[in-house]
Amino acid sequence: VIAELQARAGVHPLLTHPAPGGGSRRCQPVIICGSLLSKSTNLGGLARTSEIFGLETLVVPDLKVTEDTSFKEVSVSAGEWMTMMEVPPSKLVPYLRLKRSEGYCIVGLEQAARSKTLGSFAFPRKMVIVLGAELLGMPVDVLQELDLVVEIPQLGLIRSLNVHVSASLLIWEYSRQMLEAGGLLG
Amino acid sequence: VIAELQARAGVHPLLTHPAPGGGSRRCQPVIICGSLLSKSTNLGGLARTSEIFGLETLVVPDLKVTEDTSFKEVSVSAGEWMTMMEVPPSKLVPYLRLKRSEGYCIVGLEQAARSKTLGSFAFPRKMVIVLGAELLGMPVDVLQELDLVVEIPQLGLIRSLNVHVSASLLIWEYSRQMLEAGGLLG
Repeated sequence: VIAELQARAGVHPLLTHPAPGGGSRRCQPVIICGSLLSKSTNLGGLARTSEIFGLETLVVPDLKVTEDTSFKEVSVSAGEWMTMMEVPPSKLVPYLRLKRSEGYCIVGLEQAARSKTLGSFAFPRKMVIVLGAELLGMPVDVLQELDLVVEIPQLGLIRSLNVHVSASLLIWEYSRQMLEAGGLLG
Repeated sequence: VIAELQARAGVHPLLTHPAPGGGSRRCQPVIICGSLLSKSTNLGGLARTSEIFGLETLVVPDLKVTEDTSFKEVSVSAGEWMTMMEVPPSKLVPYLRLKRSEGYCIVGLEQAARSKTLGSFAFPRKMVIVLGAELLGMPVDVLQELDLVVEIPQLGLIRSLNVHVSASLLIWEYSRQMLEAGGLLG
């Protein structure tokens, strides 16, 4: 089944960087999926934050973004150490199904009727965090693939947090919970 | 004493925006102090995040930054709703002393020997969060004013999180704790 899903998704990791000196790096089993994002500053910011929290993989819509000047500027050198792979929006649904079959919980960041409030529940250990597009959010076919929908409680008048910041809060909250449970981060 | 400190600091809120319709807004007693920052994108990002979490005030080194194109782009319309005031770096120490005399705990985000790890302690309810400069961090005279120094546990190889992201994690962790304690946010 996995092989079939893999074939259908047509995706595989393209950029994998070992730790300097060839040692293996500590890594949290979290994939951050930015397939629906279009701004290179958001993807570059995610590369930096994901690298610092030792996430497994950053998924981008197109690996060409890593050559973009503003991606490089915002990611500092994170692009060199962070495992990144390419999943275009058209392949996102089969990719998420593949990951579910591999034991990942599919978690989306979106305000929806069934959303749980960040901070009020425990994250699964192994997950894919799917981010909505900067302006349009999450398309229905992707929403339907989510095992868990998360929203961040907000007080303000303006619409919403920047997507890189929202994702960072999720990553922190996950890391904090793992730390509290005696997990990897420290 | 407060009047004297106020006079010495020479600072007062310059931009205060009420809620639309003239109602009063819910607000958390937290001041985020970006006096040492120089990038308008970081200050603009902080305006957006601070507005969304209902913080009391954003301190900037110079209010002219709010006219900057990249500030406006990143802050979306947060600059219109967020209370901002100007404290140049040269006035920062007297400003922090004034705020301490008003009951604010002075909290700094910096890796230092006495730093506490984010997530391992309870925040005070009323505080000023002081951020270090983008490249140089926190000067010694400001470090000496901190009642509490916080660092974020990190796994990665690259140096540190972006200052806007770090500040956002602190703001979230504070808000989460207040939420858990039955506080304002919700």
